[in-house]
Amino acid sequence: MEFSSKLLENAVKEMSQLPGIGKRTALRLVLHLLKQPKEQTGFLSQALTTMREEVKFCLSCHNISDNTICEICSNKSRDHSVICIVEDIRDVMAIENTGQFRGVYHVLGGKISPIDGVGPSQLNIFSLVEKVKLGGVSEIIFALSSTMEGDTTNFYIYRQIQDSNVITSSIARGISVGDELEYADEVTLGRSILQRVPFESAFKNN
Amino acid sequence: MEFSSKLLENAVKEMSQLPGIGKRTALRLVLHLLKQPKEQTGFLSQALTTMREEVKFCLSCHNISDNTICEICSNKSRDHSVICIVEDIRDVMAIENTGQFRGVYHVLGGKISPIDGVGPSQLNIFSLVEKVKLGGVSEIIFALSSTMEGDTTNFYIYRQIQDSNVITSSIARGISVGDELEYADEVTLGRSILQRVPFESAFKNN
Ligand SMILES: [Zn+2]
Ligand SMILES: [Zn+2]
Repeated sequence: MEFSSKLLENAVKEMSQLPGIGKRTALRLVLHLLKQPKEQTGFLSQALTTMREEVKFCLSCHNISDNTICEICSNKSRDHSVICIVEDIRDVMAIENTGQFRGVYHVLGGKISPIDGVGPSQLNIFSLVEKVKLGGVSEIIFALSSTMEGDTTNFYIYRQIQDSNVITSSIARGISVGDELEYADEVTLGRSILQRVPFESAFKNN
Repeated sequence: MEFSSKLLENAVKEMSQLPGIGKRTALRLVLHLLKQPKEQTGFLSQALTTMREEVKFCLSCHNISDNTICEICSNKSRDHSVICIVEDIRDVMAIENTGQFRGVYHVLGGKISPIDGVGPSQLNIFSLVEKVKLGGVSEIIFALSSTMEGDTTNFYIYRQIQDSNVITSSIARGISVGDELEYADEVTLGRSILQRVPFESAFKNN
């Protein structure tokens, strides 16, 4: 691409460092900012810099937070004995949006993936095992994605805590509510038959 | 969406002001920045702010520029008597990338669109007409997109300059090089037949 301005070229270069943003998209976004009042670019830059500089990760659950302990972990009305293990922050947000979970979380920060060079020590696993050993935990819910890496991570953690008296569970896999059976993939359909639930309990939350 | 951090929420909000970037994409981009070194966010913010504050528009052609007169307009080896009219900066970049044009440009900054509230006075039309009246212009090439708004804009400008001795031309429309005829739309195919060129000249630039 031929740029008639080094300032523009540099802005496009930095913008296209973001995942999924190619040079063309970056150019479109930057030219959009040029058409908007200067304040919009100021607000965006300021919001990103402040967030990156000041955001914290909860010392207890590793969720993103403005304080050293996040709002969920410092909420006394939640059940601190039930811990839901998730891969990342977006999973916390997704589960919180359902309004169905009143326990607390533990954010691993990824999953074990030898191909990507991610081993157990790069994830927040040690602090989880310590938490279980200290007692006070009654149930651990595994809510990782059901991929090979997810299963490997689940099993790695499970082995570390299996000697404790903690109940372990996994979120249910099955046909999405409202989906036609014929379009479901075989594995999901198979699991939803094997892990069928009593008829009455299926309507509990509707 | 439930955010556990106001800093994160604000960054996502500002990011999702960009066109085509929804809340989910914005969250993905912001969480990516969190995983990268702080410098990356700093470089991005700095590049955007500096660009927005300091970039100029060429006084002659309205192209984006780091100086008051852009590199194209200040290049003496280019033919300043041939002016190519384009909608925006991206069109200048696209034509420059072909390496086929040695004249100069005039960037309108959009096209006449009553529905969007864009009239001739919001576009850089007056300065073009003045340039033609001052003399020294031999040819005006219309290179706007062939939409109703593009045609309206072309015709509006054409009427303002038709009394001058300037040659007016329009970029050729036709089947893309390498495209199959059967997949071309009717209008394009029709134009490419009506505006056919001598056989030998079709291979001139290959
Ligand atoms: Zn927490
Ligand atoms: Zn210029």
